[in-house]
Amino acid sequence: MVGAEELLECHKTIAPHIHRTPVLTSRLLNQMVGASLYFKCENFQRMGAFKMRGAIQAIMQLPEEKRAKGVVTHSSGNFAQALSLAAQSLGVKAYIVMPRTATAVKKRAVIGYGGEVYDCDPNLQARESLSKEIEEKTGATFIHPSNDMNVILGNSTAATELLQDYPDLEVILCPVGGGGLVAGTALSAHFFGKNCRVIGAEPMKADDAYRSFHSGKIESNETADTVADGLRTMLGDINFPIIRKYVSAIERVEEDDIVPAMRLIWERLKITAEPSCAVPFAAALQLKEELRGKKVGIIISGGNVDLENLPF
Amino acid sequence: MVGAEELLECHKTIAPHIHRTPVLTSRLLNQMVGASLYFKCENFQRMGAFKMRGAIQAIMQLPEEKRAKGVVTHSSGNFAQALSLAAQSLGVKAYIVMPRTATAVKKRAVIGYGGEVYDCDPNLQARESLSKEIEEKTGATFIHPSNDMNVILGNSTAATELLQDYPDLEVILCPVGGGGLVAGTALSAHFFGKNCRVIGAEPMKADDAYRSFHSGKIESNETADTVADGLRTMLGDINFPIIRKYVSAIERVEEDDIVPAMRLIWERLKITAEPSCAVPFAAALQLKEELRGKKVGIIISGGNVDLENLPF
Repeated sequence: MVGAEELLECHKTIAPHIHRTPVLTSRLLNQMVGASLYFKCENFQRMGAFKMRGAIQAIMQLPEEKRAKGVVTHSSGNFAQALSLAAQSLGVKAYIVMPRTATAVKKRAVIGYGGEVYDCDPNLQARESLSKEIEEKTGATFIHPSNDMNVILGNSTAATELLQDYPDLEVILCPVGGGGLVAGTALSAHFFGKNCRVIGAEPMKADDAYRSFHSGKIESNETADTVADGLRTMLGDINFPIIRKYVSAIERVEEDDIVPAMRLIWERLKITAEPSCAVPFAAALQLKEELRGKKVGIIISGGNVDLENLPF
Repeated sequence: MVGAEELLECHKTIAPHIHRTPVLTSRLLNQMVGASLYFKCENFQRMGAFKMRGAIQAIMQLPEEKRAKGVVTHSSGNFAQALSLAAQSLGVKAYIVMPRTATAVKKRAVIGYGGEVYDCDPNLQARESLSKEIEEKTGATFIHPSNDMNVILGNSTAATELLQDYPDLEVILCPVGGGGLVAGTALSAHFFGKNCRVIGAEPMKADDAYRSFHSGKIESNETADTVADGLRTMLGDINFPIIRKYVSAIERVEEDDIVPAMRLIWERLKITAEPSCAVPFAAALQLKEELRGKKVGIIISGGNVDLENLPF
C-alpha cells in the first residue's frame, strides 16, 4: 500500500502540469448546513475536471519507450478529455474509445485536445474489446479512468492541496463514481488530515458503492438513471480495497435533491459545476446534524456542462 | 479631483468589508483574442457584484449621525442588493425604491439582505420623487448607484487590486452602464497603471456613453433593449468628467455578439457571469488587432443571473 511519501512525490511530479485550484466559501451555504464549508474547485482544473490530475500522473509514470507508443482509454466523459489533454501536454499520442452514442460536443472536445477518437457500440464489452484491439495494434498502454493506482494517486492531490490550505478539516465530502476520486481523497485524508473523515456521496439511483461498502464485494448498478452522469460507473478491484479501508461512510442522496443543490452552488458560489458535484453538497445538507459546527471540505469535481441542456 | 492617496485610503477603508476577488485566466480565451487576458472576477464579490465596493465606501463616509438615519437609493439591479447588504453589515438601515415591475426574485434578494423595499411606478420620475419623499420623512441619505464620488472611489478598488496583482496591464476593458465602474477603473489605471489605457464597452443598443464621449455632453438612450440589462442606464454629471478625462475609448458591441461571448465565459472560465460582463469580452474579441500580444485586464462585473431565464 502507498504511503505519505508516494502521495507527496506524486503531487510534486504533476504540479507543473496542473492548476492549483482555488477554494471557495459562502456564508449563506455555511448557514444552510450549520458548518464551515470549503469547496475545492476542480471545475477550474485544466480541461475542467479533477481527472486531469490522474491522467497526468498515469502518463508520467510510463517509461519513455511506452510513452512513445501512446495511451488508450475508453470513456464517454471527462477522462476522455483529460487523457487527451494530458497526453498532448506531454507529447504523447492518445487513442480514445467512445460509445457511438456520445454527443458530438464531447467528441469534438476530445479531438480539440488532440485525442484520436474510435467509435464503438455503447456497452462495456464493446469498449473493452476495441481498447484491447488498439493496445495490440499500436502498443499503446491502456489507462483505466478510475481503477488504476496512478490515476488514484493523481486524484489524491486535490485533497492534498485542500488539506495544505485547511489542515483542520474534520470531514471531506466527495462524489463517488468509478471510485478513483474517493479512494485518492481518502488516502490524502488519512496521511495528511488530523482525524479527517472522508464520506463518499452517491446518487440513490446508482448506489453501487453504498451496497459494495456494506456487502464487502463490488456490486453493480442494474440501471443508473441519474442526472449526475459522472457517477453512473462502478467501483474497481484496485480502488475498492482503499475505499473499504479509508472511507468512513457512503451517503446516498435522492434524485430530487441533486438539482436544487446544483442550483445553490451555481447561484451562491457563482461557478458552473456538473450535476455530479452537487451530490456531495446535497449530502452535506442531509447530514446537517452530523456536520454541525465542523470544518468540512467538499470536492467540486468538474465544470463541463452542456449549457444547452441545463436541468434548470 | 481625487488622487492616488484617496484611492488607496478608500481601499484600506473598505477592505475589511469586501472580498479580494480572484483573477482568472484561460489559455483558450487568450488564443482567441491573441492577447493575455486577466479576468477580475467581481461575480465572486459579496452579494455577487462590484457594486458592493461603492456601497460600502459611500456608507462608511457618512458621519455617525447620518448613518443612524439610514440610506436610501433607487435601483432595480445590483445596487439595490449592494446597498442593503452594505448597510446591514455596518448596522445601518436601507430604504430601497424599486419599480413595481422588478421581479419577485430581485425584491426577495433585497429583503434577504435586510433592505426595506418601496414600490414605485417604473419610470425615473417616480423613482426620484419617492426617494425624495423617503429622504424627507426619515432623514436617510440618498446614495446614487453610479453618480456619486464615493461610489466611484469604492468601485475603483477592483482595478486597484487587479493592478496590484498585474502591474503591467496595458489595457483594462470594463463595461459601461451608469458610468460608476468605468470612472473608478479609469482613475485606478491612471494613478496605478503604467500607461494603462481604459476602454469602456457598451451594447450598441444602449450606446449613450459612446455618443456622450464624442459629443462632449451627456446623451440619453431613446430605448435600451439589450440583453445586458445592467448597462441600460446613462452617465451622470459626476462620473462623466472623469470618463472624458481618463477613459481612452468607448467600444460598442452588437447584440448578437453578447450572448456568444457570455457563453464562452461560462464554458471556459467555469463561472456564472451576467450578460453585462460579456460586453467587455465581446469588445476584446472585436479589438483583436489592437490588443494583439498585450496584457489586458477585463472586469467581470457581477454574477447575479436568473438561472430560469438564461439566454442559452
